[in-house]
Amino acid sequence: MLTDPPIEGRQGLGRRDFLKRSAAAAVALSTGPRPQPPTVDASRVNAILADFRRFGGTGDGGTTRLAYSDEDLAGRDYAAGLMRRAGLEVSTDLAGNLIGRRPGTDPAALPIITGSHMDSVPSGGSYDGQVGSAAAFEVALTLADHDIALRHPLEVIIFQNEEGGKTGSRALVGRVYPFELDIVTASGHSIRDGIARLGGDPARLAEARRDPGSMAGFLELHIEQGALLEAGGIEIGVVEGIVGIRRWNVTVRGAQNHAGTTPMPLRRDALVAAADFVRAANEVATTMPGRQVATVGRIEAVPGAPNVVPGEVRATLEIRDLAMTKIDRVFAEIEARARAIEAGREVTVAFEQFYESLAAPTDSRFRDIVEASAAALGYSRTRMPSGAGHDAQSMAELGPVGMIFVPSRGGISHSPDEYTAPGDIARGANVLLRSVLALDGGG
Amino acid sequence: MLTDPPIEGRQGLGRRDFLKRSAAAAVALSTGPRPQPPTVDASRVNAILADFRRFGGTGDGGTTRLAYSDEDLAGRDYAAGLMRRAGLEVSTDLAGNLIGRRPGTDPAALPIITGSHMDSVPSGGSYDGQVGSAAAFEVALTLADHDIALRHPLEVIIFQNEEGGKTGSRALVGRVYPFELDIVTASGHSIRDGIARLGGDPARLAEARRDPGSMAGFLELHIEQGALLEAGGIEIGVVEGIVGIRRWNVTVRGAQNHAGTTPMPLRRDALVAAADFVRAANEVATTMPGRQVATVGRIEAVPGAPNVVPGEVRATLEIRDLAMTKIDRVFAEIEARARAIEAGREVTVAFEQFYESLAAPTDSRFRDIVEASAAALGYSRTRMPSGAGHDAQSMAELGPVGMIFVPSRGGISHSPDEYTAPGDIARGANVLLRSVLALDGGG
Repeated sequence: MLTDPPIEGRQGLGRRDFLKRSAAAAVALSTGPRPQPPTVDASRVNAILADFRRFGGTGDGGTTRLAYSDEDLAGRDYAAGLMRRAGLEVSTDLAGNLIGRRPGTDPAALPIITGSHMDSVPSGGSYDGQVGSAAAFEVALTLADHDIALRHPLEVIIFQNEEGGKTGSRALVGRVYPFELDIVTASGHSIRDGIARLGGDPARLAEARRDPGSMAGFLELHIEQGALLEAGGIEIGVVEGIVGIRRWNVTVRGAQNHAGTTPMPLRRDALVAAADFVRAANEVATTMPGRQVATVGRIEAVPGAPNVVPGEVRATLEIRDLAMTKIDRVFAEIEARARAIEAGREVTVAFEQFYESLAAPTDSRFRDIVEASAAALGYSRTRMPSGAGHDAQSMAELGPVGMIFVPSRGGISHSPDEYTAPGDIARGANVLLRSVLALDGGG
Repeated sequence: MLTDPPIEGRQGLGRRDFLKRSAAAAVALSTGPRPQPPTVDASRVNAILADFRRFGGTGDGGTTRLAYSDEDLAGRDYAAGLMRRAGLEVSTDLAGNLIGRRPGTDPAALPIITGSHMDSVPSGGSYDGQVGSAAAFEVALTLADHDIALRHPLEVIIFQNEEGGKTGSRALVGRVYPFELDIVTASGHSIRDGIARLGGDPARLAEARRDPGSMAGFLELHIEQGALLEAGGIEIGVVEGIVGIRRWNVTVRGAQNHAGTTPMPLRRDALVAAADFVRAANEVATTMPGRQVATVGRIEAVPGAPNVVPGEVRATLEIRDLAMTKIDRVFAEIEARARAIEAGREVTVAFEQFYESLAAPTDSRFRDIVEASAAALGYSRTRMPSGAGHDAQSMAELGPVGMIFVPSRGGISHSPDEYTAPGDIARGANVLLRSVLALDGGG
């Protein structure tokens, strides 16, 4: 059901500039010395990214391209055209993921997969997922430009509904539960209807599952969505893995009292105890060695009136780290602090875990390849965890994965203010290209 | 529109017991030695209080007698009957307050006023306001039993809609704003309709206003609604005044960030800063000399998701003290702590005052009289502020006021668990009676 994007006549000046630049690059290739290995066309990858904004771009620099929306469908049509231009064979799998594939020279070699997502949150940015998607197309286009054959098949995948819960990549590992199909997403379409809209078949979703060991590996470029690279003036993040997450509901119970008639020494104020707890969680995560984070993001005092000493406080606690065992150690330390607060403030503090997402470490060989690629290109780099979830987390069940981060200005994401500089995007795409070539050469 | 309560036939065994006890008391009076000065009938005042529960009493020991409700009207009818039984002339003023009056022997003497309220909050207790009302009736009944004439006129007032904002007592000092009449109360009746239902005239509400200096004084017995007396094993609270109140909206602003991708050292977490603030406010109020209280009763983190570092926290701060200048000093100290938090956590803390209720000190002579009365009766007593608001606060604009507190079990109020022991109620009524006699003798 996918058709070529109507490149001429509808895409305006940006599109024409893009084609002119592509042509210029081709001319340079045919007349100048050919670099070994090649690098991406920095202008083209940024032009592709800019073109994406025609599908749901908002006036403020942001993008609203909700999974399954008309903008999502139009954006994928455009993406399919780019895939074809890069010589990829385009298809949509049963889960509605958009796939572009070129064969390898070795019939026995497993595919090297790269890609990301193109859907956004409501009033989201124009970089999250889209940078990795544009870079994947650019890698395929560069390989085509340079007529480079790979030993492995190459697959470019645009995963569907990443923002709504990584539906597409989870379908590839058989982890979409039947009840999820009835969830109505931000687009107004249920996941079931959305998959059909994309050209998948929700009734045959289970068949979209791939076998573990069916790929040579998966590489994803993504914006950092944090401020670590920018703060350190570093160009490339070599992702060590996607952190695990545990979340708890925390209930602090004291004694509800009249705020006028209850002298300070007679109070068992649940909110004062909760304040101790918020500080303790922050202190533990800040002072323990390591890169764990702990967050109290939600808090409510009951009954919540200005003139009543709170008898109960309901809050959440979230801990993330690359190692689940470290999460356990951080929690144990915070829990010990809670026990001390109970004794000191005559309250009770109860924890109830309600969410868990297991950590997904990247492959050590992939980390080395990404790092070596960045080094060969002369880019500054650092190893770091990914604090956010990504499709690579699902793909890790199928084989080795690697991730490349580029800086996010101010660490801002899921906002129209999300921004990554064109130079950073080109550097990221170059590291992705070189890593793909290194994997192909080495595996 | 008030009628005698149908004492016989409708009031059941409790009522018959009450009459039997009253008769027994009368017999005791006529045959035994007459005490000088007299004391109240401990059984009778508790029986009156128990009788109140026939009007809105709930099965769990509590009472729902919302102002202007049918239960309120029926309770007032019963109260009017008690007033008549005590030889008081019953009327309803233009504001709907129920008034029982007996003349004094000195035509020039101003009235001594006592009373409280009989309305309750929804699912409220059976003591708040009702103890002071029952005691006022008991004082009048005891004076009648003993045929004691007072030099001053005596007025017993049941103020209407205390729980909904002290409407009745504020009308006596001309402080009910026209817009308030349209407020729909918990009973479902607007204040305008409610006043009419009680026999007042909302159109002539302004005429309900009394002149400052038009009374010799006002005395109110009330349950403490705090745990100070119980905790100290003290029988009588000599109230030094009703505390003033100031309330602020407090807004802490930091930086909203992704809880996964923002390392601890790069955070400007508004909730961690707000936790500092909650603790600081508590510490300042607890450690400064005096009996001020400070409460953060409401708190909300924005956006309030488990996986987002809060960028903003909205909370309330309330400070109460007998002296408004002390409230200012406590606030200044808390504000200084907020400035230090701003610097330390890279956040801003903004305060916006949205409520003020001025402190109403009791009259020093009244305090001495209440204390001397308790001492003469052999009751333990202490001077203390009233942390809650009362009708006495309005009455203080008309002349000197005094208040007597009796213990509240566990400090619990506005709840079916509200409880004051019969012995404490009798002691309170005795202090009220003796104080009225002392005021009459001395003024």
